[in-house]
Amino acid sequence: MTSRKHRVVIVGAGFGGMAAAKALKSADAEVVVIDRRNHHLFQPLLYQVATAALSPSEIAWPIRHILRSQENAHVLMATVTGVDTGASEVVLEDGTREAYDSLILATGAQHAYFGHDEWEKYAPGLKTLEDATAIRRKLLLAFEAAERENDPEKRKALLTFAVIGAGPTGVELAGAIIELGRISLKNQFTHIKPEELRVVLIEAAGKVLGNFRPALSDYTLSALNKLGVEVELGSAVVHIDDEGVRCGVKYLPTRTVIWAAGVSASPAAKWLGIEGDRAGRVQVGDDLRVPGMDNVFVIGDVASTTFNGKPVPGVAPAAKQMGAYVAGVINRRLVGDRRHVPFNYKHAGDLATIGKRSAVTDFGKVVFTGWVAWWLWCIAHVYFLVEIKTRIFVTISWLWTHFTGQRSNRLIVHGAAETKKPLEEVTEK
Amino acid sequence: MTSRKHRVVIVGAGFGGMAAAKALKSADAEVVVIDRRNHHLFQPLLYQVATAALSPSEIAWPIRHILRSQENAHVLMATVTGVDTGASEVVLEDGTREAYDSLILATGAQHAYFGHDEWEKYAPGLKTLEDATAIRRKLLLAFEAAERENDPEKRKALLTFAVIGAGPTGVELAGAIIELGRISLKNQFTHIKPEELRVVLIEAAGKVLGNFRPALSDYTLSALNKLGVEVELGSAVVHIDDEGVRCGVKYLPTRTVIWAAGVSASPAAKWLGIEGDRAGRVQVGDDLRVPGMDNVFVIGDVASTTFNGKPVPGVAPAAKQMGAYVAGVINRRLVGDRRHVPFNYKHAGDLATIGKRSAVTDFGKVVFTGWVAWWLWCIAHVYFLVEIKTRIFVTISWLWTHFTGQRSNRLIVHGAAETKKPLEEVTEK
Repeated sequence: MTSRKHRVVIVGAGFGGMAAAKALKSADAEVVVIDRRNHHLFQPLLYQVATAALSPSEIAWPIRHILRSQENAHVLMATVTGVDTGASEVVLEDGTREAYDSLILATGAQHAYFGHDEWEKYAPGLKTLEDATAIRRKLLLAFEAAERENDPEKRKALLTFAVIGAGPTGVELAGAIIELGRISLKNQFTHIKPEELRVVLIEAAGKVLGNFRPALSDYTLSALNKLGVEVELGSAVVHIDDEGVRCGVKYLPTRTVIWAAGVSASPAAKWLGIEGDRAGRVQVGDDLRVPGMDNVFVIGDVASTTFNGKPVPGVAPAAKQMGAYVAGVINRRLVGDRRHVPFNYKHAGDLATIGKRSAVTDFGKVVFTGWVAWWLWCIAHVYFLVEIKTRIFVTISWLWTHFTGQRSNRLIVHGAAETKKPLEEVTEK
Repeated sequence: MTSRKHRVVIVGAGFGGMAAAKALKSADAEVVVIDRRNHHLFQPLLYQVATAALSPSEIAWPIRHILRSQENAHVLMATVTGVDTGASEVVLEDGTREAYDSLILATGAQHAYFGHDEWEKYAPGLKTLEDATAIRRKLLLAFEAAERENDPEKRKALLTFAVIGAGPTGVELAGAIIELGRISLKNQFTHIKPEELRVVLIEAAGKVLGNFRPALSDYTLSALNKLGVEVELGSAVVHIDDEGVRCGVKYLPTRTVIWAAGVSASPAAKWLGIEGDRAGRVQVGDDLRVPGMDNVFVIGDVASTTFNGKPVPGVAPAAKQMGAYVAGVINRRLVGDRRHVPFNYKHAGDLATIGKRSAVTDFGKVVFTGWVAWWLWCIAHVYFLVEIKTRIFVTISWLWTHFTGQRSNRLIVHGAAETKKPLEEVTEK
């Protein structure tokens, strides 16, 4: 009698899903990774693609490529639309199903507009490569439009850039936009000047980097000010349209708004037929299982759990640790060990860059600010990239930008749909 | 009395336009470069972006960046819709006008479907970065769709790739597609195998690389066959749809067709109110002026001229020589020298790669084939790239692909319009 192999289905090839897949490398199981994208994305550097310092291929790798030498892993590029927990099957968009013995949902989060979805078209968020190249295009087209604009008020609005939300992404974006703008405007345009550029970082709370220790928030605020970023604290956004942003009584005319204020979880809770928390996340037990479901795990940004009484944050190291932990649970189960070993979160630290020469890094016992933190940040990020070639490229790109000031990826590239060629039919066959 | 400076307007920032702008660096004139794109594109390597060997930013640079230290140059990102030769003004899409004293039209060519424009949506051509990423997406999605296809006939059609036209672009594409496919399918998919891949190069004429010397055509044909590319000579395409290609009595079921068969000139002739030749090009005199117009020059792919009784080919070196020549004419005119010095074309040679280890290069007196030609081709192309950083990146990318076989830019990226965010409004303000 030949028995079918245990089948682990992982939905989502972000940090959590990939960590789980890799940690199952030696498992006597079939591992199926399903993602609607063909690539794994190094999201922490996405803002650098949006601001023309890096190119998309420097921070993304085909999932198949990453898993090419893992014999028990299979990759399926497909969109999941539901989970049939009764039949233990994942339902795909085309109606086909993938059976699982163990299921790991690692589907991440997306932008949330706090009930104002109409803001999305004016204030795009930054979650995918398409988002990044679209924001890059929007930023660069604003300079081009300003160059040709004769009305001083309109030109001012075109040269004003608003970033909403002063978490790490918002802080990093604001710093990078002001540097992109200054280098782009220096000597390269005839009618607009670097000093006309305004970058405004809008935050509803009373401080930037609210989750960091207070000393680092204060340092970051003063570093942003020194860089020339205007920071509006305690300013909740109440309205956005194509002319500007209103926060409280203030109105900021701007043609370019970027949303870095909030995320909500992907619909994993809905797929499982359970209630998500306020951010749509699935409340999991201390072994990251969904209560009442023995073989369904939820990890990463879509999971809500606490460790030592504190919520586990939605950051890449947490997702990776969760993925490796769940793989460990499954590995042990495969050899008959079902002991309860709870998830043990180790906070790796808090990091954020402020422009290209400063950063804050908090490793718990040691805290760095300024250029030392910036170099640590760079080294940490290059270290975590997927491939030697990408590490070389990102290192050269950063050194190049650092010493020449040039951001060479300033390409305005339009979407395929605008080039009159609908090329997606092939997927529908 | 202050006299206004002589104003040279250059439309198009391809090889011809950029060569003209740079050669006017020391001219006592204002040089205005108008392009609807913000970047100059190194078109000869576009097929490598389409086949995931290079990333878009490795072959494109912002025009403003290239001209940043040329004080007399201004860049305008705008779409030209006409020329008012009476008023000596270029008309832009938004109705504004740019006055010129000398005009250089260098607007290049686009795909031509010989009266079958309905083929375009099934058989995209390769002229822009968007074309390249769209073709890359189409190729990679075909593999993904084949992986999930159970019907053997449909799977066969998904794994068949047709390239129409066996000029240098078609030959290079066909060779690159078969290598992309082989490395992609090797170990990275579960249900499809490298040996299922078919690449068919379809050519209406009786030989490949029709403009090269016969010995090189023959060599290329046998090198393509050795590589596994099926070459259909003497096969004029009569029909293309989303199921396949018909050429003569043969029908090839395929879901991926790429057009490399023909180009027609951009509408410069129409702008000037004159009749273009069969390919839409402007017939110019031996000084590249438009007959009857003293101050209008047409160069590059949009110009039709002969040298020593033979037509000047539509290749990058010809466009660059034309650009430099016209700048020379204007430079001399600015100092009062209006002697007639005809354009003198020097044919630099013919080059084409066949896959990643073979090529043919013809420098007139010396001819190379095989790996020597391939290395010469690589060195020649890296040499002509714009920036040190890009030269480093392309060199590393090629060596990486050469020695590891990996094509790391296999990213399926969708257009912005598909991500629900219309981001182009800013240009319309």
